[in-house]
Amino acid sequence: MNSSLSIQAVVETIRSVLPANRQHVALHEPAFSGNEWTYVKECLDTGWVSSVGKFVDRFEEELASYTGVKRAIAVVNGTAALHVCLLLADVRRDDEVLLPALTFVATANAVSYCGAIPHFVDSDERTLGVNPYKLKCYLEEIADQRPDGCYNRLTGRRIKAVVPMHTFGHPVDLDSLAEICQIFNISLIEDAAESLGSFYKGQHTGQRGLLSALSFNGNKTITTGGGGAILTNDEELGILAKHITTTAKLPHRWEFNHDMIGYNYRLPNINAALGCAQLEKLPEFLVAKRALAERYSNAFTKLPGVRFFSEPANSQSNYWLNTLLLDEGCAWQRDALLAATNDTDIMTRPVWTPMHKLPMFTDCPKMNLSTAESLEQRLINIPSSAMLASGFTNA
Amino acid sequence: MNSSLSIQAVVETIRSVLPANRQHVALHEPAFSGNEWTYVKECLDTGWVSSVGKFVDRFEEELASYTGVKRAIAVVNGTAALHVCLLLADVRRDDEVLLPALTFVATANAVSYCGAIPHFVDSDERTLGVNPYKLKCYLEEIADQRPDGCYNRLTGRRIKAVVPMHTFGHPVDLDSLAEICQIFNISLIEDAAESLGSFYKGQHTGQRGLLSALSFNGNKTITTGGGGAILTNDEELGILAKHITTTAKLPHRWEFNHDMIGYNYRLPNINAALGCAQLEKLPEFLVAKRALAERYSNAFTKLPGVRFFSEPANSQSNYWLNTLLLDEGCAWQRDALLAATNDTDIMTRPVWTPMHKLPMFTDCPKMNLSTAESLEQRLINIPSSAMLASGFTNA
Repeated sequence: MNSSLSIQAVVETIRSVLPANRQHVALHEPAFSGNEWTYVKECLDTGWVSSVGKFVDRFEEELASYTGVKRAIAVVNGTAALHVCLLLADVRRDDEVLLPALTFVATANAVSYCGAIPHFVDSDERTLGVNPYKLKCYLEEIADQRPDGCYNRLTGRRIKAVVPMHTFGHPVDLDSLAEICQIFNISLIEDAAESLGSFYKGQHTGQRGLLSALSFNGNKTITTGGGGAILTNDEELGILAKHITTTAKLPHRWEFNHDMIGYNYRLPNINAALGCAQLEKLPEFLVAKRALAERYSNAFTKLPGVRFFSEPANSQSNYWLNTLLLDEGCAWQRDALLAATNDTDIMTRPVWTPMHKLPMFTDCPKMNLSTAESLEQRLINIPSSAMLASGFTNA
Repeated sequence: MNSSLSIQAVVETIRSVLPANRQHVALHEPAFSGNEWTYVKECLDTGWVSSVGKFVDRFEEELASYTGVKRAIAVVNGTAALHVCLLLADVRRDDEVLLPALTFVATANAVSYCGAIPHFVDSDERTLGVNPYKLKCYLEEIADQRPDGCYNRLTGRRIKAVVPMHTFGHPVDLDSLAEICQIFNISLIEDAAESLGSFYKGQHTGQRGLLSALSFNGNKTITTGGGGAILTNDEELGILAKHITTTAKLPHRWEFNHDMIGYNYRLPNINAALGCAQLEKLPEFLVAKRALAERYSNAFTKLPGVRFFSEPANSQSNYWLNTLLLDEGCAWQRDALLAATNDTDIMTRPVWTPMHKLPMFTDCPKMNLSTAESLEQRLINIPSSAMLASGFTNA
């Protein structure tokens, strides 16, 4: 049954939260008000811009410390981080990897790079991430436990891993997913590309996966230009992750020996320098972003047909991208709302096209995806930069 | 028959070429004396550090113009560039790709990323790159021409491409290799990672391949921290290269649709900014590097047991890494010479361990590799930074 909301009222409500003096409001833009300039200049002045340098080491140490893992390995971007997480979790050619249909394409692409097959699972409207209950029911139906792992009885392929993604920074229900992974003998890898600064039951996201991936793309909560990181609590996997992302070269005074097929995925020192400065500002960004989210939340309480998506129970979200959910009856107005906001230079966007609808993944296995498809019709991201809150967080 | 050279004389000869006031002399270090800071600062001041920005466009245009190709696509590093070159040349799982045994491991790794098999070919002592004569004789022996391509009659696999590499900046004999590719119906891809600023018969290296790869790693003639580029004269492949390196996203005002498995290989704007400034200095670097090479060449004319490697006929080399070749009889002294130089803070190194000796590639097909193995025993790179010549190029 179609109902309707006032497009004009939604636009005005968004505008009421934003600073008055802004002409063009981006979805998410970075702020370089700290030591970015100083650290980058140090790289140029010393000549250490490339694959080795003190900012890479420092960035890795500080990331590990902030996220509470034993080891963080800086890489060129979140996609590379995901790829290496999967490789080190022993995802092999023709394995299946469970992942949400509702994610950025990098999650599914990384599975493909391993020669493995993405297998799409449905979302939970409470977290926007993988629905553990639906996943458990589904696995009870299709899983065939064998000595060497969990198999999909429909395809005959091994199901090696599940990669939940913390959508727009909102943590998935990690306890339930970890339990399912244990029951079914499947590895847990967290796609934490969007959730730096997000906590689940007091623990930073990315701690529960065998390995996890972060992203520092230009649109993320902090940025290194392009960049990412692998997180792990397994010391051996951490050492291996560093080795395989730096061409698997064996240390020697002059010889060039490599002991496995490696990757050139290391983050350049100049990008890590940016990361160190951004990490110093992260607590401030998080305060600002939560303040902005709170203002949106308050502003949208009384508007019919739409609601502001708030962090799930037991979680503290970074509110990377603020999210509106239209009521089901108002889904038909999504594109009109996207047009109205973008037409007035308030940048908004829908969620990603679910993976099973992209041509290269249409033949991949999937469960019933009714919630993902409903969210696709109803979800809109609205401006979320930390700087949009600067006017009132310092008050 | 073993002969001997004077280690001390070699060390003194190297030192006689280097500036007198230098304590530690690196093999190759970058110089940021131009607009690096100005351009990088502009990125930070405007917030455009990431995947889109004017320096990416400018860097691509200027690279294409300098190297004389229709299209250049900036990517995260040379390995990524090679990977995409191979993908776009339609290198598929279980194809074979011919490449020199004597190369940096990235060339062989990139072949592996495609699920293809490296097939190692021998070097030419005149260029340090692929020996066209040996390659032709070898292909006459093993090639089986079929309607869909050239097959290896020993393995039954398709030989899809050959990837010559311009070792230390010295161009391979491209005319002969292009002819062989035509005769045997094999695609030519140039690994030009080391040869920005190197010309073969007046044409910049990288023009002859269907696609070619550049690198701007920190140790290269110019650097972007980490970076690379794909070069091509095929407009369609150029467009496809840009598309596939930027997640294969279809342009739309807000929708996220992707039409193939793509990669996150784009060069961040902040790294491209560095590249634009470095490219302005390239002509100056090349003059300095050739002057340094000439001084080495003169200094080594009279020393027995060793010679300075000069650019091949018909070529103008960038002299990326200057090279000494020990006489065969003196090969046993290579490690002593490496130790003596590095002990006195003059950084030197041997050539890479040939690919067929690395554990992950020992089972790959190969021809007789006698020249590559001889070069491995006799080759030493000596300090090559442009700045080492600054004292005399301005005189």
